[in-house]
Amino acid sequence: MTPQTNCAPELLVQTWFNTDRPLTLAGLRGRVVVLAAFQVLCPNSVASGVPQARRIYETFAPDDVTVIGMHTTFEHHDAFTVPVLKAFIQEYRLKFPVALDQPNPAGPIPHTMERYKMRGTPSLVLIDRYGMVRKHAFGAVDDMRIGAEIGALTQESESAALTRSSAA
Amino acid sequence: MTPQTNCAPELLVQTWFNTDRPLTLAGLRGRVVVLAAFQVLCPNSVASGVPQARRIYETFAPDDVTVIGMHTTFEHHDAFTVPVLKAFIQEYRLKFPVALDQPNPAGPIPHTMERYKMRGTPSLVLIDRYGMVRKHAFGAVDDMRIGAEIGALTQESESAALTRSSAA
Amino acid sequence: MTPQTNCAPELLVQTWFNTDRPLTLAGLRGRVVVLAAFQVLCPNSVASGVPQARRIYETFAPDDVTVIGMHTTFEHHDAFTVPVLKAFIQEYRLKFPVALDQPNPAGPIPHTMERYKMRGTPSLVLIDRYGMVRKHAFGAVDDMRIGAEIGALTQESESAALTRSSAA
Amino acid sequence: MTPQTNCAPELLVQTWFNTDRPLTLAGLRGRVVVLAAFQVLCPNSVASGVPQARRIYETFAPDDVTVIGMHTTFEHHDAFTVPVLKAFIQEYRLKFPVALDQPNPAGPIPHTMERYKMRGTPSLVLIDRYGMVRKHAFGAVDDMRIGAEIGALTQESESAALTRSSAA
Repeated sequence: MTPQTNCAPELLVQTWFNTDRPLTLAGLRGRVVVLAAFQVLCPNSVASGVPQARRIYETFAPDDVTVIGMHTTFEHHDAFTVPVLKAFIQEYRLKFPVALDQPNPAGPIPHTMERYKMRGTPSLVLIDRYGMVRKHAFGAVDDMRIGAEIGALTQESESAALTRSSAA
Repeated sequence: MTPQTNCAPELLVQTWFNTDRPLTLAGLRGRVVVLAAFQVLCPNSVASGVPQARRIYETFAPDDVTVIGMHTTFEHHDAFTVPVLKAFIQEYRLKFPVALDQPNPAGPIPHTMERYKMRGTPSLVLIDRYGMVRKHAFGAVDDMRIGAEIGALTQESESAALTRSSAA
Repeated sequence: MTPQTNCAPELLVQTWFNTDRPLTLAGLRGRVVVLAAFQVLCPNSVASGVPQARRIYETFAPDDVTVIGMHTTFEHHDAFTVPVLKAFIQEYRLKFPVALDQPNPAGPIPHTMERYKMRGTPSLVLIDRYGMVRKHAFGAVDDMRIGAEIGALTQESESAALTRSSAA
Repeated sequence: MTPQTNCAPELLVQTWFNTDRPLTLAGLRGRVVVLAAFQVLCPNSVASGVPQARRIYETFAPDDVTVIGMHTTFEHHDAFTVPVLKAFIQEYRLKFPVALDQPNPAGPIPHTMERYKMRGTPSLVLIDRYGMVRKHAFGAVDDMRIGAEIGALTQESESAALTRSSAA
C-alpha cells in the first residue's frame, strides 16, 4: 500500500443523493471510508470506477466500510446538472451515498477535487478508521489489490490505527 | 436476418452533431445505413450499443455503410441537454454523425423513436440501399451476426435491392 | 479483405473428430470454408481463437459455411495426444469437425501448418466457394470484421467466384 | 468468510513443478497458503481459476502468502501427462509452484482431491498461518472478495491465529 498518511480533508459537497443527511468524514471516524470519484460521461469512470465502487459496497459490511461516490469534474460544467446525476444513479442502481462536488466560483476545479489534488476521474481514496488517507489512486485499479488493502484496513482496530498514526 | 421489409421512416431530428448538414435517409439512398439508437445514461447503450456502433463505423467503408447515432429516450427528459450530448461525443471520441431525436410536445416518446416503434435503447436498425428496414433489434446484439448481416447487405447492388423490393 | 487469391492447399490430417468421414477441401467446393487453427495449451487459441470459431459455427448455416478446427503446433509434440484432443473437444463442447494436423517426421512443423505457412496459433483462413484463400490471419481478429468478410463471401455465387478467380 | 476451521489435510503429490523441492503444508506453517486446484482442459479453470491464482501471486508478498497450483481431475486420466502440464505451465507463464495430484489406483479421484472433498475444478482453498482451512470455494469467485479475505488473513499474527484456533 502506498505509505500515505495524510489526514483526509473534509468533503465539500453541493448536493447529496442516497442519504437522509449529509455525511462528514468526522462523523465516519471509526469506519474505513472508500471515496470513489467519478464523472458520468467519463468512459473509464463508467466502465471501471463506478462498477468497482459497487463491488466494494457489495463485498464489505456497510457499517464497517462506507463507500461514498463523489461526482467531480474539471470540465463540461454546463452538462452536469442535478437531474443528470439523479438519472445516472437510478439507471446504474447505485445504492451507496453519492455526493456532487462543490463548485468553485473562482475556477474550473471543484473544492473536494482540489483539496484531494485529484488528477481526474476515476480516482479512489482509502481512508482508515482514524481519518488518514492510506491510498490515493488515479485510473483503473486491480480488484484483487483493492480488496486486499481494504480487507487489511478493516483488521486494524481503531486503537491500533491511533498508535500507528501517532508513531508516524 | 429478420425478414423485415418495411420502408424506413425518415428521421426527425432536433440537433445534429459531427456533420456539416442534416442527413436524411432519402439523401443516403444507395448506401447501407446503420441507425444506432442510444441514451448516454443507459448502461447497456454505453457498455454495448455505442461501442458496437463505433466498431461498425471502423469496419466498413463510410461511403458504403453510413453509421448514424440517434440519441433517444422516453424518460429523464430534463437530463438530456445539448451540452450533455456534446460532452459525451467528445469523451467517447465518436466520429460518426449523431442526432438528437426530436421531442414530441404531446408525450414522452420523441418522434423518431415513435416512428420506428423502438422499445428503448440500445436499438439497432439496418436499412438497405433501397431504404428498406432489414433488421430491427432491441438490446445487445452479437458482433459476428451484425457483421455478417451488414456484410451481406453491402453485396447487394442497388438494382438487386430494387428487384428484391419490388418482388416483395 | 486481404486480396489473397491463392488456391487453398488440401488439408493433411492424422485424425478427424466430430465427423463420420474425413473432409477434403475438394469435397467442400461450393461452400465457404473457415479453417480455424488452434492448439489446446495456447492461451490465445483458447481465449480467443476457439470461441470465435464456435461463434462463426453458430452464426452461419452449416451447409453454406463449413467450420473446421485444425489442431496444429510446432512445439510440445509429446503433449498432444489423441486423448488430450478428445477431452478438449468434450470439455469445450465443440460441435464442428476438428482435425489433428499430420506430423512431419522430418521436422517439428506438421504438414498442414507448413502448406499454409502458418506462423502459429490461432490462425484463421477463409476459403471461398471456389477453393481460393481469401484471408489468412494470425492472432486475434475482430468478430465484426470476420462476420462481415464471411457474410460477403456467402453472397458470392459459385459462378461469380469462378469469374473473379479466372480474371485474377 | 465461510467459518470453516478444519485442519488442512497435508498435500499428496505425484510431481512438483516450479520448485526445487516438494512443499508441505507443515513446512509452510506461519504463512497464509492459497491452494488453487485446476485442470488444464477445464474451461472455467483456464478462463477464471488459473488467471485468478496468478493475480493472487502477483498481489501478495510470496513470503507471506504462498500460492500453490494443484492439477487435479476425476476424469480424462489418459490425457493428463507430465508433458501436458509442463507445456501448460510454460505457455501460461506460471511462476508459482504447481503440483500434480497423486493418482489413487483404487479409483478415479486422486488423493488430494479426495482429502479436501473437492467437487471439481476450479476450487480455491485458503489456509491460515496456523494450518486451518478458512475458505473452500468451488467455481468462479469474485476477485474483490478473495482479495479482502486473503488481506484479512495476512493481518492475523501467528499467535492470534493460534489463540483463535484453540478457542474454536
